[in-house]
Amino acid sequence: MILANLVRSRCSNLSEHIDCPVILWSGAPSPRNFPANIYPFRANSHFLYFAGLSIPRAAIRLYQGKLELFMDDPAPGSVLWHGPEPTGAQWAEQIGADAHYPWSALAERAKDAATLPVQDGVTRQQQEQILGRSLSPLQGKDLELARAVVELRLCQDEGALSEIREAVQVSVEAHLAGMRGTAQAKTEAQVRSLIESVFIAHEMTPAYSSIVTVHGEILHHDRSPHPLTPGDLLLVDAGAETLGGWASDITRTWPVNGRFSPTQRAVYEVVLAAHDRCIAQVQPGREYEEIHLEGALAMAEGLVDLGILIGNPESLVEQDAHALFFPHGIGHLLGLDVHDMEDLGDLAGYAPGRKRSDRFGLQFLRLNRPLKSGMVVTIEPGFYQVPAILNNPQFRAQYDSVVNWEKLSQFSDVRGIRIEDDVLVTDQGSEVLTVQLPTAPDQIEQAIVE
Amino acid sequence: MILANLVRSRCSNLSEHIDCPVILWSGAPSPRNFPANIYPFRANSHFLYFAGLSIPRAAIRLYQGKLELFMDDPAPGSVLWHGPEPTGAQWAEQIGADAHYPWSALAERAKDAATLPVQDGVTRQQQEQILGRSLSPLQGKDLELARAVVELRLCQDEGALSEIREAVQVSVEAHLAGMRGTAQAKTEAQVRSLIESVFIAHEMTPAYSSIVTVHGEILHHDRSPHPLTPGDLLLVDAGAETLGGWASDITRTWPVNGRFSPTQRAVYEVVLAAHDRCIAQVQPGREYEEIHLEGALAMAEGLVDLGILIGNPESLVEQDAHALFFPHGIGHLLGLDVHDMEDLGDLAGYAPGRKRSDRFGLQFLRLNRPLKSGMVVTIEPGFYQVPAILNNPQFRAQYDSVVNWEKLSQFSDVRGIRIEDDVLVTDQGSEVLTVQLPTAPDQIEQAIVE
Repeated sequence: MILANLVRSRCSNLSEHIDCPVILWSGAPSPRNFPANIYPFRANSHFLYFAGLSIPRAAIRLYQGKLELFMDDPAPGSVLWHGPEPTGAQWAEQIGADAHYPWSALAERAKDAATLPVQDGVTRQQQEQILGRSLSPLQGKDLELARAVVELRLCQDEGALSEIREAVQVSVEAHLAGMRGTAQAKTEAQVRSLIESVFIAHEMTPAYSSIVTVHGEILHHDRSPHPLTPGDLLLVDAGAETLGGWASDITRTWPVNGRFSPTQRAVYEVVLAAHDRCIAQVQPGREYEEIHLEGALAMAEGLVDLGILIGNPESLVEQDAHALFFPHGIGHLLGLDVHDMEDLGDLAGYAPGRKRSDRFGLQFLRLNRPLKSGMVVTIEPGFYQVPAILNNPQFRAQYDSVVNWEKLSQFSDVRGIRIEDDVLVTDQGSEVLTVQLPTAPDQIEQAIVE
Repeated sequence: MILANLVRSRCSNLSEHIDCPVILWSGAPSPRNFPANIYPFRANSHFLYFAGLSIPRAAIRLYQGKLELFMDDPAPGSVLWHGPEPTGAQWAEQIGADAHYPWSALAERAKDAATLPVQDGVTRQQQEQILGRSLSPLQGKDLELARAVVELRLCQDEGALSEIREAVQVSVEAHLAGMRGTAQAKTEAQVRSLIESVFIAHEMTPAYSSIVTVHGEILHHDRSPHPLTPGDLLLVDAGAETLGGWASDITRTWPVNGRFSPTQRAVYEVVLAAHDRCIAQVQPGREYEEIHLEGALAMAEGLVDLGILIGNPESLVEQDAHALFFPHGIGHLLGLDVHDMEDLGDLAGYAPGRKRSDRFGLQFLRLNRPLKSGMVVTIEPGFYQVPAILNNPQFRAQYDSVVNWEKLSQFSDVRGIRIEDDVLVTDQGSEVLTVQLPTAPDQIEQAIVE
């Protein structure tokens, strides 16, 4: 789809949801250790959605379906260091803007405009100065804009899906490279290198800090310092992001020596069964919280079968006993952000009027809405032995009668298993975007040995 | 060297240069697209120098050789996501701090303290609030601190050199991997992937945005979008940074098909001769600007020999004619930052009382000091055909009589060549830290074909 058409259609859709002018900032590059040494620039997601390109130090004004671009031409001396860069006029043409102005024109065109805050502190201060109000918390027309943008971005259009599919394809290739290279690797970092090098070779970046670790029980372990030891399971949660900023998010867990132990395979099958049952439930109209609870039930059933949990699975889920081993939510929205629109808190994830539960088994659920065609969600059940949970005296007392601790101790070679796919809700039900990456344990073993 | 000893020795050295208490902030992680999705955290370099470890949201207070650490223990819920993280007490022990306090104790201990600003906007605002003064421009005791820190960091101690050597070793391996993989690669991005994957496999990061491009004439071309075409030269400027934050910085230029064309080889030999002559001049007491001018002279001599420049080389350098093809400086300081201490502007690069020249051939010289034993500098002459320079009507008129444009047109397959090594100034003269990576064209051709 031609970028300008996509931009036009998104801008026009926005005008149906909000009456006032809207200004979105792209943000400024964040310096790392000195001003010229910056983190790779990535524009604010709301800007990216409506402008289509990651232009630093720019803003767009959207009003009644028209788009204006505000940015300065590159400084004259810049060409030596950065080569010929597009002028404002050239960027404007590329995205099909109706007009473009120098940066200095922004302040006067900002009157009565709604906006959303960017992440970098410098630009954010500028936003609040120009608009003369605080953006934290969001209020009034800014909050109205946030709700309108959520409405639009909840369901992915053709342009978005095309980018997400590209990101997914590269991530699948990356995970396969990681599996195939594991037999030769001696450290987590070496496998991570195999995975991220596939992203780089496609001019993509990690959509989030990759998790490549034999300590899968640490949910967001974003460093990879450990050696690989035969008998370890390696948990890999890594997804590429396209140049346009669209994310993918995939987790697989595999044995470093190419063979699941019987205990690892048994737990893996439990997680996989939960994964499959949840994916089978993805369809328009289905409440995502129900899918989460279905996943919890599948985990409870499986753990009862293994003798780790004791009791009636429904009742175990009601007591949140599954959350001892599956403490997070079944997944989240995926789009420009890996946790899509999480910059707006729970405004995107939770339907109007709904709030996070404080139940142990629901508190980390990031999405609680009825599914709609066009949404992309992750499905990612997991099993973890988190010392901070399992050694917590309060939990041990509360769940003493429903956990067979002795049985559990036989599964000590299973620290963390997660299986995560990206699923598109369709009119017909769902499509697993990540289907090309195997989940079955036999296939995974084969990919490692290949 | 044990970290705590290193920290103690640096703190004690600082107390000989400044009388008042010093507080250094590490900074906060910079969010990318939403608060939980951050750029990989890297502490402020001055903090890193004195604290030794990249601790987020921390500050140290240095006074009379004593070190105090300020930070909060991890939040109780954090352990599920990030695993067991060190407490303030544990960090304090690791770096050998004399005392540690919660974050809230910082404000009252900040009285009369000097500081240096961090890069992230949020922490910077906090610094200015706590101290009750602006840090831009640096003034008074803050400026005095900057001068003291420059004095210490100009010459690298044993701990620093050990880290720089590690970074160099990984960078050398990465460049070799890039050379060896070029024959199979079809795009710049694929070679970049081979190089950066070596960094990742060693748990290192790029010290700066890698430059891997067939458009070497764009000096800081930090994206890699182009295909590789036989006949192209690939310019690779890429250096690893250790977990402790220490940088390396290496450039090599090689033919994508493994053979320099005669014109490419001829220009390469000119750049290499300049490179070798400059390195031979590195020794204590030598003015770095003179080395730059020696490099300029070598370039002018070589280009006269090739028939591209016309005239007496000394006189060509006096006219800045070399800068048509070698527009940047011969190198810079290297340490915790790839352009070491550039966050302080020219305070580190330029000796007290010296200022940047506005001469075309000197304006981008980043270092202008007499060399001292313990300094690490880069030596990186280059030849570029920058359209913005060579097509500039003013330059064309000014240098019309000293450039043989027709001859130059025979070298159109040489867009950009740079050869960059990292050199330690020693009591005996110098040591090329990057010596294991070949510079000779025959050896480079061999590495590609291997």
